[in-house]
Amino acid sequence: MTYRAPVPDIVFIMRHVAGLDRAVADGLYGDLSADLAETILDEAGRFANDVIAPLNREGDRVGATFKDGQVTTAPGWRQAYRAWTEAGWNALPGPVEYGGQGLPTLLNSACVEMWNAASMAFGIGPVLTMGAIEALASHATDDLKSRYLEKLVSGEWTATMNLTEPQAGSDLAALRSRAEPAGDGSYRITGQKIFITYGEHDLTDNIVHLVLARLPDAPAGTRGISLFLVPKFLPDGTRNDVRCHSIEHKLGIHASPTCTMIFGDHGGAVGWLVGEENRGLACMFTMMNNARLAVGLQGVAIAERAYQQALSYANERRQGRAIGAAESMSPIAVHPDVQRNLLTMKALTAAARAICYMTAEAIDRAHLEQDPARRKKANERASLLTPVAKAFSTDIGAEVASLGVQVHGGMGFIEETGAAQHFRDARIAPIYEGTNGIQAIDLVTRKLPLSGGETVRAQIASMRATVARLSKESTPAFGATAPRLRDAVESLDRATGYLLKAVSSNAQGEALAGATPYLRLFALAQGGAGLAELALAAQAQAAAGDGDPAHAGRIALCRFFAENIAVGAKGLEDTVMGGAGFLQDATLALAS
Amino acid sequence: MTYRAPVPDIVFIMRHVAGLDRAVADGLYGDLSADLAETILDEAGRFANDVIAPLNREGDRVGATFKDGQVTTAPGWRQAYRAWTEAGWNALPGPVEYGGQGLPTLLNSACVEMWNAASMAFGIGPVLTMGAIEALASHATDDLKSRYLEKLVSGEWTATMNLTEPQAGSDLAALRSRAEPAGDGSYRITGQKIFITYGEHDLTDNIVHLVLARLPDAPAGTRGISLFLVPKFLPDGTRNDVRCHSIEHKLGIHASPTCTMIFGDHGGAVGWLVGEENRGLACMFTMMNNARLAVGLQGVAIAERAYQQALSYANERRQGRAIGAAESMSPIAVHPDVQRNLLTMKALTAAARAICYMTAEAIDRAHLEQDPARRKKANERASLLTPVAKAFSTDIGAEVASLGVQVHGGMGFIEETGAAQHFRDARIAPIYEGTNGIQAIDLVTRKLPLSGGETVRAQIASMRATVARLSKESTPAFGATAPRLRDAVESLDRATGYLLKAVSSNAQGEALAGATPYLRLFALAQGGAGLAELALAAQAQAAAGDGDPAHAGRIALCRFFAENIAVGAKGLEDTVMGGAGFLQDATLALAS
Repeated sequence: MTYRAPVPDIVFIMRHVAGLDRAVADGLYGDLSADLAETILDEAGRFANDVIAPLNREGDRVGATFKDGQVTTAPGWRQAYRAWTEAGWNALPGPVEYGGQGLPTLLNSACVEMWNAASMAFGIGPVLTMGAIEALASHATDDLKSRYLEKLVSGEWTATMNLTEPQAGSDLAALRSRAEPAGDGSYRITGQKIFITYGEHDLTDNIVHLVLARLPDAPAGTRGISLFLVPKFLPDGTRNDVRCHSIEHKLGIHASPTCTMIFGDHGGAVGWLVGEENRGLACMFTMMNNARLAVGLQGVAIAERAYQQALSYANERRQGRAIGAAESMSPIAVHPDVQRNLLTMKALTAAARAICYMTAEAIDRAHLEQDPARRKKANERASLLTPVAKAFSTDIGAEVASLGVQVHGGMGFIEETGAAQHFRDARIAPIYEGTNGIQAIDLVTRKLPLSGGETVRAQIASMRATVARLSKESTPAFGATAPRLRDAVESLDRATGYLLKAVSSNAQGEALAGATPYLRLFALAQGGAGLAELALAAQAQAAAGDGDPAHAGRIALCRFFAENIAVGAKGLEDTVMGGAGFLQDATLALAS
Repeated sequence: MTYRAPVPDIVFIMRHVAGLDRAVADGLYGDLSADLAETILDEAGRFANDVIAPLNREGDRVGATFKDGQVTTAPGWRQAYRAWTEAGWNALPGPVEYGGQGLPTLLNSACVEMWNAASMAFGIGPVLTMGAIEALASHATDDLKSRYLEKLVSGEWTATMNLTEPQAGSDLAALRSRAEPAGDGSYRITGQKIFITYGEHDLTDNIVHLVLARLPDAPAGTRGISLFLVPKFLPDGTRNDVRCHSIEHKLGIHASPTCTMIFGDHGGAVGWLVGEENRGLACMFTMMNNARLAVGLQGVAIAERAYQQALSYANERRQGRAIGAAESMSPIAVHPDVQRNLLTMKALTAAARAICYMTAEAIDRAHLEQDPARRKKANERASLLTPVAKAFSTDIGAEVASLGVQVHGGMGFIEETGAAQHFRDARIAPIYEGTNGIQAIDLVTRKLPLSGGETVRAQIASMRATVARLSKESTPAFGATAPRLRDAVESLDRATGYLLKAVSSNAQGEALAGATPYLRLFALAQGGAGLAELALAAQAQAAAGDGDPAHAGRIALCRFFAENIAVGAKGLEDTVMGGAGFLQDATLALAS
C-alpha cells in the first residue's frame, strides 16, 4: 500500500477548522482563494504520491551511505529532489524578492505534511532549508542575502542547522564551538557538531551550514552565542574547511543522513556572522515556530501514512466472522476492536492536523495582519500553539504508527510489510527540534504567562465558544460529543489556572512536574474543539443538501474523539493538579 | 549499560504481593521457602547478567541467518544455550518424573522475566519448549512421553508450536494443514506453517514440533483440529519430511529465528497424535495460560531492561541546571519532567510485574490446592488474570521502551545506544501468543462470565479490601494514594457490571467495543492494588524498624502510580460505558 494524499480532508480542515476561508475573506492571503489552494494541493498530492512515496521503502532499506567523507543518498533520491525543486515546491513559501512564491505558511504546511507522509526521510531536508531561509531573510546582511537566498529558495542549494554538540543537546548554554574574526569581515569557525540532518549529501552542489558558535570574548551561557553562515563551497569555488566525519546508524529515517560535522580541522572554516554578535539564539528563535510546526506536521504525516496502510490491510485481511454476518470470514475492519484501533488512529491524526493547521494560520496572521495589536495577538497565539502542535502531533505520530503495526498482527512485525518502517521513522519526531518534554516546559513556563495569561485564556474561550455552538446541535449522531468536549475544556481551564499560579509563585517544581500531562490535556481540548468545528461544518453542509457521505463520517469521527479520547482529560487534570507529590521522594523511588 | 537482575525487588513482590509467603505457610510449595527462592533467584540473576545479557546486542546485530534450509544462530548463542540447560534452568518447572525440578510457576516466572530481560530473543525459545512439555505431560500417550519428555525437560531438545498458517492467524478455524493416518499408529502431516519461533536452529540436535492439522474426516472449524508431535529427526535417526523454507526479516528479536515451515513436501511428515482426535485446540488451551503469562513476563522484562538503561543514562547525562542547584549542569535525572518519565517507566513495570506474579501464584494454586473447590477458584482466578497479565504487561513493555528512547534524547535514536533495540524488541509481545485485542475480547466475553461473574467480583472485592487497609494509613508519604486507588477500583466495578450485562444480553457489539479500554482499566485497578500491597508491606517493615530506604521508595512509587497513572481509570470507564456509539457509523467515518 503506498500513500494517497488525502487532499479533500486536508482542504476541508484548512477551510473550516484552520480558518482559510476566513483569512481569504479578510484579504489576508492576497490572490489566494480556496479553489486555488485546492488546485495547488492536488498538484502537490500528485507529486507526493507519484514521485516521493515510491522512494520511501528503498530509502529505508539502502539508506544514506558514507564513504571517505562523502554521503551518497539512496537510489533515485537525487533525481526526485531535483524534480521536486524544479517543479517549484521548495520555493512555495519563500520570499518573492528571492524568487519564492510567497505563499502562506498554512498552504505550505499542507504540502509539508504530504512530502513527509510520502517519505519522512525526504521531507525533513527541506524543513531545514526553509528554516535557514527564514533566519537569513530576517537577520543576514544584504550581501549574504544576495549571495545565498536565491539558491536556497529555489532549492538549488540546501541548508543545515548546526546547534547540537556532544555536551550540548537540550542545553545550548554548554556550547563550545568557537569563531574568531579574520579581520576581513569573515570569521574562522572551529568545533564539532553532531546530529546534523543532511549535513552532507549528493543532492545539490553546495550546502549552506548555519552554525552556532562563541566569539573569543563572548559571555558564558546562552548570551554568548552567535550565528554564522558557513558554506561547504566558498564563493570562489574552493572547498571550505568543514567536513562530515561520519553518519549515524539510526532506528529510522535511514535515507536522511545524520552527520557529525567537523569545522576547522585546517585552521578554521570560513563563515560570516548572521545577525548581531552574541544574539545567535535570538536569530534561531526566529525560525523556531516554523521548524517546530514542520516537525509537528511530520507527526501528522506519519500518522496519516500509517493509518492509510492499516486501513487498507484491515479491509483486505479476513479473519473471524462479524456479528450477524453470513460469510465465514469477514474483513477485520468490521470487528469492533479493530475499528476502535482504526478510529483512534484517524481521530488522533485529524485532531493533530487541526492543531497544526491552526498554528500555521496563526503564524500567517502574525506576519500578515495590518494592525499591530492583531499581529501581536496572532503571534502570541502561534507561540502558544506551537509547542502543542509539535509535541502532541509527534507523540500521536508514534502512537498511531504503533497502532498501525498492531492492526497488521504478525505481519506488522515483518519489515517488508512497511508498517514497521513507519513505526521506526515516527520515533524521531518527539525527540528532535526540542524534545517533547522541552516543548511542554516551554508551553507551561513561557507560553502560559504570555500577556499575563490572557493569550491562553482567549484560546480557552474560543474552545468554549465552539463547544457552545455544538451543544445547540440536536442531531442524535453527535451523541455525547458536546458534554464530553465541555468537560475536557473545563479540565483544561482549571489546570491552566493552577499552572499559571504555580509558574508565577515559588512552585516552579510543580509547574515542571505537570508540564507533559498538561500539554496532552491542552491538545485533547484544542483537538476536540478543532474536530467540533469540522463536525459543525460537515453538519451545515449536509443540512444545506450536500449528500456527500463524508460529512456523516466527519461527525462520527468527532464523536469518537469526544467519547473515547477526550474523556482522558479529567485524569490528566488530576495528574497536573495532584500528581507532583513525587518531587519529594523521586530520588528514593528511583534508587530503590 | 547491561542488565542487572533486580532480585530484591522481585523477591519483595513475590513474597508480599503475589503471596509467596502465604503459599509457603499454606504448605503449597513443599520444601520451598522464601529464603531458598531468593537463593535460586540470585543464581538465576547472575546467569542472566553474566551469560545471557552480553549476547543481546550482537544477537540483534547479526541475527539468526538462513542458508539452504539451515538456520545459524548468532555468535555465542549455542554455547550460552547449552550452559543454560546444563545449569538446569530449563528443567526448573518441569515434571519431576521426567527429570524436572517441579518448582512452582511463580518461581519460574521470576526466572522467565530475568532470561527475557537479559535477552528477549533468547528467552522466547524456552517459553515454547515449556509450553510443549505441559501439553505433552497432560495429553500425550505414555509412549510419546517416554520418548520425548525427558529431553525436552532437560532442554537437550527444544519444541515449537505450529499453529499459524497464512490464512489462519487469530482465526484458527481457517486452518488447512492435513494429517492422514498411516495405518501403523502414526500420521503423515502436510501443510505450511508461518511465524514458527525457533522452528529451525542449531542450538540442539533435535527439534520437536507440535502441529495443528486436520484429519481427513474432520468437521470444519475449530472442532476439527487435532494436535500432532512431529520431530525433526525420527527415533531411528532419519530426517523427517519437514523443513524450514525461510526466516523472516523482522523489526526486532532478530536473534530469534521466525520460520516458515513446510511439512510433507515428500509424501508427508511422520507425526503422532497428541490427545484425542479433533481435540487439538483443547490440548493447546492447556498450555495457553502459561504461555500467555510468559509473554506477559516478556513485557515486564523488556520494560525493566529499558528502565535500567534509561535511569543509568539519566544519572550520567548532564544538561540544564536543577531548580536551586549550584552546579552549572545537573544530571537530567533530577529534572521533574525526566523524573516523571522514569517514574512512569518504573511504576508501570512494577504494576505489570505484580499482576504477572499474582497470575503465576493463581496458576500454582490451580494445580496444587488439595481442595477441589479451592482449585477451581484458583483456576478461574488464573483464567481471569491471564489476559490482563499478557496484554497489559506487553502494552506497557512497548510504552516503557518508547519512554526509554525518549529519556535518551537524540542518543535514543542511535542504534548503538541500545534503547532502540528494546523499543524494537518490545513491539512483538503485544502481537504474538494472541494479539492484545484478542486478549481483551477473551477477558470480556469468556472470563468475566466465569461462575456467573463471581470470579471477577471476588477479585474486585479483594482489591477493595487492599485499598481499605491502605486508607487506614495516615502517613503523609501516601498522599492521595488511597482515594485515587479507590476511585479506580470503583470505576472498574461499574464498568464490570456494565459489561457483564452486555455480554449476557444482545449487546455483544458494545462488549467487544469496550474490551480494550476495559482491560486497561482492570490493569490500573489491579496493578494499583498490587502496588498498594507492596507499599503496605514496605510501611510495615519500616514501622518494625527496618531502615532500608527502599521501603520509602516503594511507598513513593505506589503513590506516583495512584496519583499519576491510576487517575486515568475514570476516562477508561467513560470509554467502556459511553464510547460504543462508533459501532453505527464506523464504516462511514473510516471511509470518509
